[in-house]
Amino acid sequence: MIRLMILNGPNLNLLGVREPHIYGTTTLEAIRRSCEDFAQSAGASMSFHQSNHEGALVDLIQSAREGVDALIINPAGYSFTSVAIFDAMKTFERPIYEVHISNIHARDELHRHSILSAAVTAVIAGLGPYGYIVAMQAAMQRAGKLPPNLPRSA
Amino acid sequence: MIRLMILNGPNLNLLGVREPHIYGTTTLEAIRRSCEDFAQSAGASMSFHQSNHEGALVDLIQSAREGVDALIINPAGYSFTSVAIFDAMKTFERPIYEVHISNIHARDELHRHSILSAAVTAVIAGLGPYGYIVAMQAAMQRAGKLPPNLPRSA
Amino acid sequence: MIRLMILNGPNLNLLGVREPHIYGTTTLEAIRRSCEDFAQSAGASMSFHQSNHEGALVDLIQSAREGVDALIINPAGYSFTSVAIFDAMKTFERPIYEVHISNIHARDELHRHSILSAAVTAVIAGLGPYGYIVAMQAAMQRAGKLPPNLPRSA
Amino acid sequence: MIRLMILNGPNLNLLGVREPHIYGTTTLEAIRRSCEDFAQSAGASMSFHQSNHEGALVDLIQSAREGVDALIINPAGYSFTSVAIFDAMKTFERPIYEVHISNIHARDELHRHSILSAAVTAVIAGLGPYGYIVAMQAAMQRAGKLPPNLPRSA
Amino acid sequence: MIRLMILNGPNLNLLGVREPHIYGTTTLEAIRRSCEDFAQSAGASMSFHQSNHEGALVDLIQSAREGVDALIINPAGYSFTSVAIFDAMKTFERPIYEVHISNIHARDELHRHSILSAAVTAVIAGLGPYGYIVAMQAAMQRAGKLPPNLPRSA
Amino acid sequence: MIRLMILNGPNLNLLGVREPHIYGTTTLEAIRRSCEDFAQSAGASMSFHQSNHEGALVDLIQSAREGVDALIINPAGYSFTSVAIFDAMKTFERPIYEVHISNIHARDELHRHSILSAAVTAVIAGLGPYGYIVAMQAAMQRAGKLPPNLPRSA
Amino acid sequence: MIRLMILNGPNLNLLGVREPHIYGTTTLEAIRRSCEDFAQSAGASMSFHQSNHEGALVDLIQSAREGVDALIINPAGYSFTSVAIFDAMKTFERPIYEVHISNIHARDELHRHSILSAAVTAVIAGLGPYGYIVAMQAAMQRAGKLPPNLPRSA
Amino acid sequence: MIRLMILNGPNLNLLGVREPHIYGTTTLEAIRRSCEDFAQSAGASMSFHQSNHEGALVDLIQSAREGVDALIINPAGYSFTSVAIFDAMKTFERPIYEVHISNIHARDELHRHSILSAAVTAVIAGLGPYGYIVAMQAAMQRAGKLPPNLPRSA
Amino acid sequence: MIRLMILNGPNLNLLGVREPHIYGTTTLEAIRRSCEDFAQSAGASMSFHQSNHEGALVDLIQSAREGVDALIINPAGYSFTSVAIFDAMKTFERPIYEVHISNIHARDELHRHSILSAAVTAVIAGLGPYGYIVAMQAAMQRAGKLPPNLPRSA
Amino acid sequence: MIRLMILNGPNLNLLGVREPHIYGTTTLEAIRRSCEDFAQSAGASMSFHQSNHEGALVDLIQSAREGVDALIINPAGYSFTSVAIFDAMKTFERPIYEVHISNIHARDELHRHSILSAAVTAVIAGLGPYGYIVAMQAAMQRAGKLPPNLPRSA
Amino acid sequence: MIRLMILNGPNLNLLGVREPHIYGTTTLEAIRRSCEDFAQSAGASMSFHQSNHEGALVDLIQSAREGVDALIINPAGYSFTSVAIFDAMKTFERPIYEVHISNIHARDELHRHSILSAAVTAVIAGLGPYGYIVAMQAAMQRAGKLPPNLPRSA
Amino acid sequence: MIRLMILNGPNLNLLGVREPHIYGTTTLEAIRRSCEDFAQSAGASMSFHQSNHEGALVDLIQSAREGVDALIINPAGYSFTSVAIFDAMKTFERPIYEVHISNIHARDELHRHSILSAAVTAVIAGLGPYGYIVAMQAAMQRAGKLPPNLPRSA
Repeated sequence: MIRLMILNGPNLNLLGVREPHIYGTTTLEAIRRSCEDFAQSAGASMSFHQSNHEGALVDLIQSAREGVDALIINPAGYSFTSVAIFDAMKTFERPIYEVHISNIHARDELHRHSILSAAVTAVIAGLGPYGYIVAMQAAMQRAGKLPPNLPRSA
Repeated sequence: MIRLMILNGPNLNLLGVREPHIYGTTTLEAIRRSCEDFAQSAGASMSFHQSNHEGALVDLIQSAREGVDALIINPAGYSFTSVAIFDAMKTFERPIYEVHISNIHARDELHRHSILSAAVTAVIAGLGPYGYIVAMQAAMQRAGKLPPNLPRSA
Repeated sequence: MIRLMILNGPNLNLLGVREPHIYGTTTLEAIRRSCEDFAQSAGASMSFHQSNHEGALVDLIQSAREGVDALIINPAGYSFTSVAIFDAMKTFERPIYEVHISNIHARDELHRHSILSAAVTAVIAGLGPYGYIVAMQAAMQRAGKLPPNLPRSA
Repeated sequence: MIRLMILNGPNLNLLGVREPHIYGTTTLEAIRRSCEDFAQSAGASMSFHQSNHEGALVDLIQSAREGVDALIINPAGYSFTSVAIFDAMKTFERPIYEVHISNIHARDELHRHSILSAAVTAVIAGLGPYGYIVAMQAAMQRAGKLPPNLPRSA
Repeated sequence: MIRLMILNGPNLNLLGVREPHIYGTTTLEAIRRSCEDFAQSAGASMSFHQSNHEGALVDLIQSAREGVDALIINPAGYSFTSVAIFDAMKTFERPIYEVHISNIHARDELHRHSILSAAVTAVIAGLGPYGYIVAMQAAMQRAGKLPPNLPRSA
Repeated sequence: MIRLMILNGPNLNLLGVREPHIYGTTTLEAIRRSCEDFAQSAGASMSFHQSNHEGALVDLIQSAREGVDALIINPAGYSFTSVAIFDAMKTFERPIYEVHISNIHARDELHRHSILSAAVTAVIAGLGPYGYIVAMQAAMQRAGKLPPNLPRSA
Repeated sequence: MIRLMILNGPNLNLLGVREPHIYGTTTLEAIRRSCEDFAQSAGASMSFHQSNHEGALVDLIQSAREGVDALIINPAGYSFTSVAIFDAMKTFERPIYEVHISNIHARDELHRHSILSAAVTAVIAGLGPYGYIVAMQAAMQRAGKLPPNLPRSA
Repeated sequence: MIRLMILNGPNLNLLGVREPHIYGTTTLEAIRRSCEDFAQSAGASMSFHQSNHEGALVDLIQSAREGVDALIINPAGYSFTSVAIFDAMKTFERPIYEVHISNIHARDELHRHSILSAAVTAVIAGLGPYGYIVAMQAAMQRAGKLPPNLPRSA
Repeated sequence: MIRLMILNGPNLNLLGVREPHIYGTTTLEAIRRSCEDFAQSAGASMSFHQSNHEGALVDLIQSAREGVDALIINPAGYSFTSVAIFDAMKTFERPIYEVHISNIHARDELHRHSILSAAVTAVIAGLGPYGYIVAMQAAMQRAGKLPPNLPRSA
Repeated sequence: MIRLMILNGPNLNLLGVREPHIYGTTTLEAIRRSCEDFAQSAGASMSFHQSNHEGALVDLIQSAREGVDALIINPAGYSFTSVAIFDAMKTFERPIYEVHISNIHARDELHRHSILSAAVTAVIAGLGPYGYIVAMQAAMQRAGKLPPNLPRSA
Repeated sequence: MIRLMILNGPNLNLLGVREPHIYGTTTLEAIRRSCEDFAQSAGASMSFHQSNHEGALVDLIQSAREGVDALIINPAGYSFTSVAIFDAMKTFERPIYEVHISNIHARDELHRHSILSAAVTAVIAGLGPYGYIVAMQAAMQRAGKLPPNLPRSA
Repeated sequence: MIRLMILNGPNLNLLGVREPHIYGTTTLEAIRRSCEDFAQSAGASMSFHQSNHEGALVDLIQSAREGVDALIINPAGYSFTSVAIFDAMKTFERPIYEVHISNIHARDELHRHSILSAAVTAVIAGLGPYGYIVAMQAAMQRAGKLPPNLPRSA
């Protein structure tokens, strides 16, 4: 069974509230439940975290070194500034999926270029909350663990 | 039935051959077949194109204004230089999904920042050929046309 | 009789449709007719072209070397990227008028600085479709071919 | 009757004398007379000013708020440096036409990018003194005040 | 017998006409004949192409993958802008010689830095039309196919 | 008889030893011998120098003003930093050929842009040691002194 | 009664000690007491916090969403680096006053441009500890809650 | 009795009219009256000036060297360009308060960084017209001249 | 007896595991023991800390103000981003030694320039874990506390 | 008799008072007297002006076109910002000497690079008030009007 | 026995005299003696050189290829400009230690970033003359040649 | 008696020959003689040197520390690149006059900004060979050693 860790960066606890014209109205709790539903149906195990603390995110990424097969991370504001998280990701030798709810590349200069993207396997930006599901599915596809009813190849 | 157009930019006709350490060994024909399989199973219609010509890609994007519900484009080398394609995308008022097989953000300076990303709905980079399937699925999810067996919400 | 060639770059075939808040609702066909009306009344001959292909625009500019007295070009998206068109213009030794329907200098960074402007005689930006008429008139004024009822000097 | 104000920036009082290889041999007085002739024949009223003082130009632009329908300005050297004129222009809520006698975009780095262009309706550069006539005509066309013998649409 | 493909980019069809103070008066046809003479005398086969179309150049480079031992390309205006040609070159796994008739490094900013140079084997700039002959000879030297009367080593 | 001076910059005395993955295994002495062989066979006279001292290279270039018809220089590390050598080259009013053994344009940022290239006639980079022979031949071709058995025109 | 939250960033706990030539000798505790005195006399309620932890500041700003009418923040070192705090501020939809004890615009490059300023209502820099009082007063003025003896309008 | 001089830069005479979405609807005359009221009640003397002329502002700042205890200046458009005003400020050896009605740090690139801020004691931006009162009060606080009913310390 | 504090930044707890081709295989625990051995033999007291939290490092540096004679810090990822740590260092008025295990100046752009270096006494990079010992020894040498068997002067 | 005009830019009327550690204690009046003494003894005529107004300096430079043989200008703060003065200088076709009392090249970034220097004959910076005398003398030397007792050649 | 070469760049012969507030008062001769003392006591052999000539330093580095086990270099002013020395270092395949007496990272822009650092094993900056001893010790530690009384591991 | 040293950088030995449209036709020998004549008549002693070697210029500047009262240097090409000469100048604690024959500020980008100017007392550029005389005279004026017949004050 594939084990996934999903990490959420600063201010995502306010999802659904904060700047809804950019991030929509779905709450982080709703995303967690959708991820859990998908995990259950697809036969994956999953943990789900949020923190506003850069160091806490570094700690969590480090902890993933034991027992996690793939990391899914929405680093939010730390995407643009954190070399510490970049370095932590580099210590994780399995796939990492960077998810952004909005298409950051179409935003203002401060939020446009994630320095973390150079340390991940793949980037998914602009699919809204559905990006989390897609990232989970992609992690399973890569690991050869997709359940039969999901699209497989390409 | 949702109608999708999938566009592929320059040199993607050589996929599976060109720099396989970056792009893998799957051919474009194999991707086309996978996309068609997925479309068929999911109840979508699809056209699939490749061109090395910037102007031809502009023509195709313009033609999508009639009868296409969502555009999926891997602009390859034109991602980094084409304002003409950027402008053509801006004339298409429905969702556009930009797909890159490799994670361009981890590549060299010349291939790192797609200027087109500011004109699209979402960017999916680094999932390999599976990115095309994910983009199709996301287009259907957004349109509310996902078949029952696919993950729906988040 | 002065002979003019009017060239239109990528996506201008969608004029009147594409981003009307920037480019207005006049179609390219309507512009062509206005230009023809003006040419007829002013005693000029004129050809009118549009292409989404950079190379085709280069071909057309080269063809103007035979039998064209002045070139009027709205290079659209290629204004910002095409050294090939720049070089083609340099081979045309008579006046070139660069026309932009909107005032590009007030737009986003991607559409603000035309590299082609350094290769032309004059730039007219922001007059809307009327800029084409102005360019034709200016070409005739410079050639000393203005019909009597048009303002002549300054 | 449309009321136009024409403003000329620093050193334009020396037109016809200063660097004739760039600006030609027509004097500013000759331009004023041509503009007046055109205004008279076209049924417009006009005032014509020149100042070497940035503040004086700001004062004049502000004064145009009362009783002027369109502003035509050749800001000369202040094009490249004056935020004060930029802000004054922003207080004028009707059309502004920026005229440059030479094609500034083909000049040296210091004279290439007018910061004022982002605050105007249109830019006309490189038509020589005729640019003033064109700007007047364009202002009238936009206001629907063109006399019958002038080209009207496009 | 070594097989060479010689490609010429936009506006080179006007060689001998266009800006002769930079490019000289030799025509492209004359260059083609010289190259053919040299090829014949040296025991090489050769094809010779020119196009103003970026996509056509990409197509030609791709076609060289079959049956061509070395590519000689004067990319002209596309040298400075085309990532698509850069990527096409990367798919060609044998030597590529980039030729410029003038010394581009001594020209204006727009024509000074070829982004393609990072994808080629060697760059020869400033030898005039003779640069083509030198490139052919170098290709043969590298392949060990120089006829006895030509300088061999160093 | 054409008289050539060949200059070699810092660290080239270690050629064949220093970073052979970049510069190959041919020694500078071997290059000197090849050049002498070619000069003899082609009817040219030649001197050959190497120095690690910027000032010594300036001295040598100045000395070339007397009795040297063309200069061939591989400035190595000084290519990227020496305005003094740039100025010395400017005092030499006959052709200068800049040779680089590797294709510097494909190297790291520090070794990519020769500031000297703007002061020379031609640049030849990436042909390995054969670049010296090519440069000698080109110098003779330009001077109309090629022996009959060498390719002459283009 | 208006409710204010005053936040202090990293190292401000050392105020009065750290680099007194820049920040003066008043301690943060003294500032807290002055703020409380002012709040009491002016009829406002107030909380006062300091943290060296970026995440803790994000937490505090988020908590202000409930029951705080205006935020006063001296972000100290995080002014120049924290997108996470920027985003947190954006979730707070009432006025935010950024206070700096010194005039940061006159300091070294590292401490000159607060990226947070683009997310606040107002910036007060260089008034020393008195800046806190001014910010409280401004918050009350904006809310129409100034006690009678304070200057009200402008 | 503390003597204050309040200076206003270009276009501030149009305050309340010009771009009210940025600057609000209070006129400069209203601000003058508020300042006078505050000065009277607080026991300060005050002069109040506005000019669109950079040189006039320099003259006024110089004149302040005699008999003025603190300068309050809203340099408007000259904030971003005037080294002459910067130098004049440097000749004034007592406190200078730079006031901006809007938060310039959240505006467009042209209006974001005041070069004058490096020459002042303090910067107050974004408090609207109230910023003038705050600056007067701060000047008095620093001079130890605050009337008893105003907040004094921190 | 000299009292030293040794601080280690984010991800250094994974030393010996993380990217061993850059950082080697020695663990942080091994470094701690070596430092303790050296301290004991040299007659110094020492504390040794690691944290992934920027704020915790700020706290620790502040705590060093009491009872620590010199600070040795390997700030890892925070070297490149943390103004908060920079400011904390500035509050510590005794020597600070910045240690990097690898030679950061030879790494990628993200890890090349420590902004903290401008706030320290000395920088030691590239000596591997031995850099910690060297830093301790240097701190003792500067304090005149070197035991007799260690090299003393230069 | 050679006729000289000496112009002084903003804030120079405060010379001897303003920032004496940079500009010294000599007043502008003292400089005027020294210049007059030198002019008298050397047989030159001279006028001497100072203005804080950019436009007034432009007016003065323009007036020099009649009857002035050489211009000596200390543009002070306008050195770094005024394209209007640059253009005015370009209309003066005889020698211009730019004088700076301090060595501007050793000052802060704002005062380091005079954009005007590209429009003058010579620049003299750092000689203190003596720079004016040197400029007068140089103007006379160039005009062949040096009195017999002054050094003539080189 | 380990053989060390210590190189000193331009102006270091004036050490102890030149800008003592930056470099201290120890002379280079004193440093040489300290190094020799340490070498003798530690069982190493050593040569010690200083030159103001870039080329001479290149020569010396090249000579180190024979018989030198580690290079210690204080490149002084050439640190910031010399690609020739960079390339020479690259030919030396054993450890290189770059020493700076002051902490260059805290100096002015001209002296802040050594381009040579990317070519060395380690950088030691800011330890004063003691940096030379530390570098010698580190070279011995790396070579496993430390005498028993020196700290060994970490 | 004041003792002057005059230094000339690379390629100045070719003065009068090299690029006469920039540097004129006076030879360095003629300048030396003029300087000697002036020195003799003014009661100064003088030495005069030229070298193409950066290190030799450093040596000479260092030697000036003994017995030279002022340095006059035309650093030519090293003006733009040599930190070694910059540092050597900093060791000379008496006045240094930087002379450029042409006005470097009006030249190309490579020759426009002397990095050495920040280390000198004064810069004199564009006076032609007469600049040397002016520099000598200025050095004497500063030392209070001007002969009676030379202009003294300002």
